[in-house]
Amino acid sequence: MATLPFFWKNSHLFILDQRKLPFKNFYIKCKTYQDVINCIKNMAVRGAPAIGVVSGYGMFLAVMNFKKGDFKRYIENVAKEFISCRPTAYNLSYVVDKIKDYIYSLNIKEKLTKNDLSKIFKKVEEIREENKKALQKIVEFGLKILEKNSCVLTHCNTGALACGDIGTALGVIIEGYKRGKVKYVYVDETRPYLQGARLTMFELMNAGVPCCMITDNMAGYVIKEKKVDCIIIGADRIARNGDTANKIGSYTLAILAKYHNIPFYVVAPTSSIDKNIKSGKDIKIEYRDESEVKYVNGKLITLKNAKIIHPAFDVTPAELITAIITEEGIFRYPYNFV
Amino acid sequence: MATLPFFWKNSHLFILDQRKLPFKNFYIKCKTYQDVINCIKNMAVRGAPAIGVVSGYGMFLAVMNFKKGDFKRYIENVAKEFISCRPTAYNLSYVVDKIKDYIYSLNIKEKLTKNDLSKIFKKVEEIREENKKALQKIVEFGLKILEKNSCVLTHCNTGALACGDIGTALGVIIEGYKRGKVKYVYVDETRPYLQGARLTMFELMNAGVPCCMITDNMAGYVIKEKKVDCIIIGADRIARNGDTANKIGSYTLAILAKYHNIPFYVVAPTSSIDKNIKSGKDIKIEYRDESEVKYVNGKLITLKNAKIIHPAFDVTPAELITAIITEEGIFRYPYNFV
Repeated sequence: MATLPFFWKNSHLFILDQRKLPFKNFYIKCKTYQDVINCIKNMAVRGAPAIGVVSGYGMFLAVMNFKKGDFKRYIENVAKEFISCRPTAYNLSYVVDKIKDYIYSLNIKEKLTKNDLSKIFKKVEEIREENKKALQKIVEFGLKILEKNSCVLTHCNTGALACGDIGTALGVIIEGYKRGKVKYVYVDETRPYLQGARLTMFELMNAGVPCCMITDNMAGYVIKEKKVDCIIIGADRIARNGDTANKIGSYTLAILAKYHNIPFYVVAPTSSIDKNIKSGKDIKIEYRDESEVKYVNGKLITLKNAKIIHPAFDVTPAELITAIITEEGIFRYPYNFV
Repeated sequence: MATLPFFWKNSHLFILDQRKLPFKNFYIKCKTYQDVINCIKNMAVRGAPAIGVVSGYGMFLAVMNFKKGDFKRYIENVAKEFISCRPTAYNLSYVVDKIKDYIYSLNIKEKLTKNDLSKIFKKVEEIREENKKALQKIVEFGLKILEKNSCVLTHCNTGALACGDIGTALGVIIEGYKRGKVKYVYVDETRPYLQGARLTMFELMNAGVPCCMITDNMAGYVIKEKKVDCIIIGADRIARNGDTANKIGSYTLAILAKYHNIPFYVVAPTSSIDKNIKSGKDIKIEYRDESEVKYVNGKLITLKNAKIIHPAFDVTPAELITAIITEEGIFRYPYNFV
């Protein structure tokens, strides 16, 4: 992997500031769990699997820096803070809850032993390893659904930067290129945050994959005129019935795929599947600050007092999704994740 | 009308530099027809009806500045230059051919008389007046198709700035608001040139119409979640069968409208209907420079060597268009413009 989205060194978590990519390679040194929370909130690190793993390290920083008081209550509050900082991505609560439950199982009262610390850190690394293995399996399953020499279209960023390792949808695409399954990639720039323009193009070009960037509103034209074989995206949260929340614009792409009769694939680890919810109706869509739409590169693009809405995600109904690929296999509609 | 997109004064054409809107009100003084051509090419003035009328004045500047030589050949070449500077917008050749034919009908050999000049100028103003009257009629017809208190979604800019007068789709919307037909407007920012963000929001807010800007990829979400009643857009060229070229992204909106079962309206003067072509297959799509996508506010948004395509328009097939509204009435599928 060319650029690590985060790494642990000398008791600190270093998070690559993806907002500066592809122009600068700058790591933010996180000494406290609040530093990690800030990085997640301000999108220095993003992508559901990546923020899952990162929040694991964040939980460990919280444990490490615990001074005194009610330890259980402290952990409870830290966990809540993490889970609420990006409400749509499920991996966040998936990891945080796992770590929290593990910490509780250690029955720590007021004093942490070195042994406790080392056990918790091991758990964090274990989750990271689990994520890595899941991604590798996902990619293998993903490759099975791709025809030889496919021309694919993707949205947002779902590569190593978004996942910590190999990637979901973009992992399939990059590995697919190496194995003759992918010939060409169209990349939505993905407004407002331009993850496609800044991150996906960066990862594809680093990997030597032939690709071309388009504005989001060109997708229909490109699918119609350029013989796109399929659309592949990631996921931020998947309901039991397969309804999938992903970066804003995904729903429109699914409708375009249906109209043009090409497959629409969702690629995600099972840690993105929220088994507590039945359907997409229960997925909370995160509304982010309008300044992220209003300003590009710090410059205003519309009137200062213009009203703007900024839903960061949308929900694609399961019936528009040809297949959902996880580390457990290739699932097809109707979905029933239990 | 708050801001004139162009005006004629002291033998010069003044063109508002719309690239600087809504931040600066700056007029470019055009002394020669080449100045006008530059303004059309670099999109200081844009919008099919507006560049039609402006090219009429441009033709007059060419006549005014004629020195010596083969006058007919000179006019022929100037006309070609105008028509080729934006290949998709039909109004350009509609106006230029009209003026050219009129000039030829005057049988000017080598010397232009004052009388010739004044006749040609009158013809240009006549075309402008014709455009204005057509737009007013269009708006009246457009209002007939709107239900009371509609929530509409629009793309790009089709207001007075794009038309010289009242506007097409946006003319209907603004007038519709005044008459209780329109309650709320969602405006696509319209990448890459951000005509929605910069121009449509400007015109709507000046007119006091309640509106909200979204990124293009939010349209699907907004239609699904916010009860949009219809989509209204303009046109750059319409074929005899109703296939319509318009700003990139329009085709995707038409598919979204069909999927959500809401009407999709095209509003344009008959000067946008190219009766020489049977269908959209014959419409040439203008590919513009990739720098217009790659840079926003002069700043790079992706890797410098990233490959980009920039089709400025797409073609919406007639069967996706609920109605085409011109100054001659409300037409419904199947279309047969003769």
